Amino acid sequence: MSTPVTARLAGFACAPLDGSIPREVAHAGRRTIVNALAVGAGAARHPAVEIALRSVELLEPAPRRCVLGRRERLSPQWAAFVNGVAIHVEDYDDTHLASMIHPGAPVVAAALASAEHAGASGQELLEAVLVGAEVALRVGVGIGPEPFDRGWHPTGTIGHLGAAAAAGRLLGLDDRAMRWALGIAVTEAAGLQAALGSMTKALHPGKAASDGVEAALLAARGFTGPSAGIEGRRGLIETTAPNANPELIVRGLGQEWRVLENTFKPYACGIVAHPSIDAAVALREPIAGRSIRAIHASVNPVVLEVMGHAEPTNGLESKFSIHHCIAVGLLDGAAGPDQFRDERVLAADVRALRSIVSVDPEPSFARDRARLRIDLEGDGMFEREVHHATGSRMRPMSDVELARKAETVVRPVLGRRAASLVELAFAVDELKTMGPLVDALLPDEEDLDTALEKTLWS
Amino acid sequence: MSTPVTARLAGFACAPLDGSIPREVAHAGRRTIVNALAVGAGAARHPAVEIALRSVELLEPAPRRCVLGRRERLSPQWAAFVNGVAIHVEDYDDTHLASMIHPGAPVVAAALASAEHAGASGQELLEAVLVGAEVALRVGVGIGPEPFDRGWHPTGTIGHLGAAAAAGRLLGLDDRAMRWALGIAVTEAAGLQAALGSMTKALHPGKAASDGVEAALLAARGFTGPSAGIEGRRGLIETTAPNANPELIVRGLGQEWRVLENTFKPYACGIVAHPSIDAAVALREPIAGRSIRAIHASVNPVVLEVMGHAEPTNGLESKFSIHHCIAVGLLDGAAGPDQFRDERVLAADVRALRSIVSVDPEPSFARDRARLRIDLEGDGMFEREVHHATGSRMRPMSDVELARKAETVVRPVLGRRAASLVELAFAVDELKTMGPLVDALLPDEEDLDTALEKTLWS
Repeated sequence: MSTPVTARLAGFACAPLDGSIPREVAHAGRRTIVNALAVGAGAARHPAVEIALRSVELLEPAPRRCVLGRRERLSPQWAAFVNGVAIHVEDYDDTHLASMIHPGAPVVAAALASAEHAGASGQELLEAVLVGAEVALRVGVGIGPEPFDRGWHPTGTIGHLGAAAAAGRLLGLDDRAMRWALGIAVTEAAGLQAALGSMTKALHPGKAASDGVEAALLAARGFTGPSAGIEGRRGLIETTAPNANPELIVRGLGQEWRVLENTFKPYACGIVAHPSIDAAVALREPIAGRSIRAIHASVNPVVLEVMGHAEPTNGLESKFSIHHCIAVGLLDGAAGPDQFRDERVLAADVRALRSIVSVDPEPSFARDRARLRIDLEGDGMFEREVHHATGSRMRPMSDVELARKAETVVRPVLGRRAASLVELAFAVDELKTMGPLVDALLPDEEDLDTALEKTLWS
Repeated sequence: MSTPVTARLAGFACAPLDGSIPREVAHAGRRTIVNALAVGAGAARHPAVEIALRSVELLEPAPRRCVLGRRERLSPQWAAFVNGVAIHVEDYDDTHLASMIHPGAPVVAAALASAEHAGASGQELLEAVLVGAEVALRVGVGIGPEPFDRGWHPTGTIGHLGAAAAAGRLLGLDDRAMRWALGIAVTEAAGLQAALGSMTKALHPGKAASDGVEAALLAARGFTGPSAGIEGRRGLIETTAPNANPELIVRGLGQEWRVLENTFKPYACGIVAHPSIDAAVALREPIAGRSIRAIHASVNPVVLEVMGHAEPTNGLESKFSIHHCIAVGLLDGAAGPDQFRDERVLAADVRALRSIVSVDPEPSFARDRARLRIDLEGDGMFEREVHHATGSRMRPMSDVELARKAETVVRPVLGRRAASLVELAFAVDELKTMGPLVDALLPDEEDLDTALEKTLWS
């Protein structure tokens, strides 16, 4: 007998959680929210967000829901869409390595819009984020690497299930409706890796979030979906992952929390580049003023598969270039959003250094391990090996580091409100309504006039 | 060198067609539109349409675009969604057998909403429908049966490409933006056969249509997508159909038109049941008043795969029951929407007859062939073999038959306007604007008060 995955997940996603959430689980949820809101608000002026926003504003004349770091308001569905794009667009969000899913973008975007729509409390938002992330991460781990290896982008595909679970929970779906919502979401689950390097990579969690909200709204009104869309005949597993382990999806559900395995990105690019960037940042001072002949990196083979873009020509492509990541690490000692702007990608110093980077796949290296060797002109060399990258499960960011990242990324948008947003988000479950959080997400007063002017006259 | 499928399709979808459309091609387009508008408007009161409409109305406070056979107005995207659902929900639309795609729902729904939005002429609508259908059908044939056999529902998946091409054309995308639109649409392409038997089957073309419109709106504003999403690395073919024939997708593009192979459904269910229904309808009179012992059908094996629901319990399931189709054919001499209502599915006479139907797969039979044998109590028997079903390519519906079907299906909704809708749609390319067509799609005056009341007070 096959495991009734959908029913189990639907039941879990509906069930009350009061009191049964372990402290560290709740905190993992809070961290996911802090991080997602921060990087999303930080990306509020990104072209992908501007464009997504203008496109859906056209469709959305009487909006009310919050767009991270912006004055514009949208419907719940479109707010989820734009916020999902915004949270993911700088590749600065979060990563669950075992499933290769970035849960914050689809789940938090869907949950925030649904929470505003439903008049939910901060506790309810937190529970929805936990439940949504858990559903996505469990399905991601259970279906295994096969869909990813074939070309799917799990934050887009499986992200749909997390978003639907979170939205459905906040909209108060019963068990039957939640099954339908998951069934609707799973049949809309899509996202090809072909989109990597274009804005459409970030559209994946945006669609996952908005499709999740839409699925919940439809199911709430009685739009019937398949009841076993994940494990049933011609469902997700049979169609995309015949070698999946359905039992693994539900084993320990509600007791063991995969959301605890979620990690937060210290660098604004694919996580598999992070150990190499750690090494490059560490070698920045030692090599200062020296003439470099060659740079050799040894990395897990997956790095070249997803980040093998040796000569990126724009910011989005540079996020898929391990060569670029190493170059900016050595030059700037950082790999934040600024290091992946078009200007930096085209800068002469970066291009020169990037051109002498060579990368060797090393199958014995785990994904969070890398070795960097700098050969100087003449005989000298420096070498640095990183066994666990910053932000990895073995070396997670502390709350202080996460708060610092969050404040840094939102300050250019929220100004003085940056600190208060981070504080509110860390204590989100104490909020009676979404109001204070939404207020804290408004752009800084000083920026308001400019933003308003742009909106009115562009 | 791999075939640049996306670029070719994008170029084709953008290029002017004036004067180069063969007469029969234009007419095939008109027929597709007639049929789609009719079955969509005919389904205007279907629960799936009611629910979809209420859900998106919530998201859409200031609507302007036409919903088939209804007074409500929606944004272009949501109009496309609801109309896509409405055209497909009775399984009464159209079928391109070689690709297993029902092109009318995703393509006409996307095109109508986009045409209204763009202030397009009837000729422009027609061209967009032709181009959109052609893109979808060509990709469907070129990728081959593999994705379908795995569990995908191509009207949902590949339908996205047709919808994006049609919408993009009407919105005036240039070549680059059209590639992006196809790239965005293809990474959103989804639809699992697990949804068959629920309302969500009809959601597939609804989503294809609305995602297509959305993709075109995003791409028009510069939201970048993959430029080779179909044939490129980790694109549609690599991920879902590695044995595809990309060359077949573009061979003869613009010269040979697959839309000519589109057929229209005389019965409101899966096309593979149609030859059996033809046989049952033909045997209705001969068996009148006789006692039947057993009914044996010999059919192409795919019939049992997709329509093997021997004991359906509701209308949607009955559309996937060859047993039910044969029973109503014998009892009612018809298989229109009325034969697939819940009441008819549960009726005693239908249940009794259904229970004595046995079905044998016959690999030597083509999909449009079936043999039906009725064993009477005692020794008598009747047999009927159908070599090409009504509405199949070898025995297509005539314009007169199609007009009769269209009028019949819309009369309960449009009343006196039914004939004028059919007339306008058959001459759609003579319209200067969408206005007259949209007016003809309004429900009958007598029904208006009731409809308005329902909208206001429900």
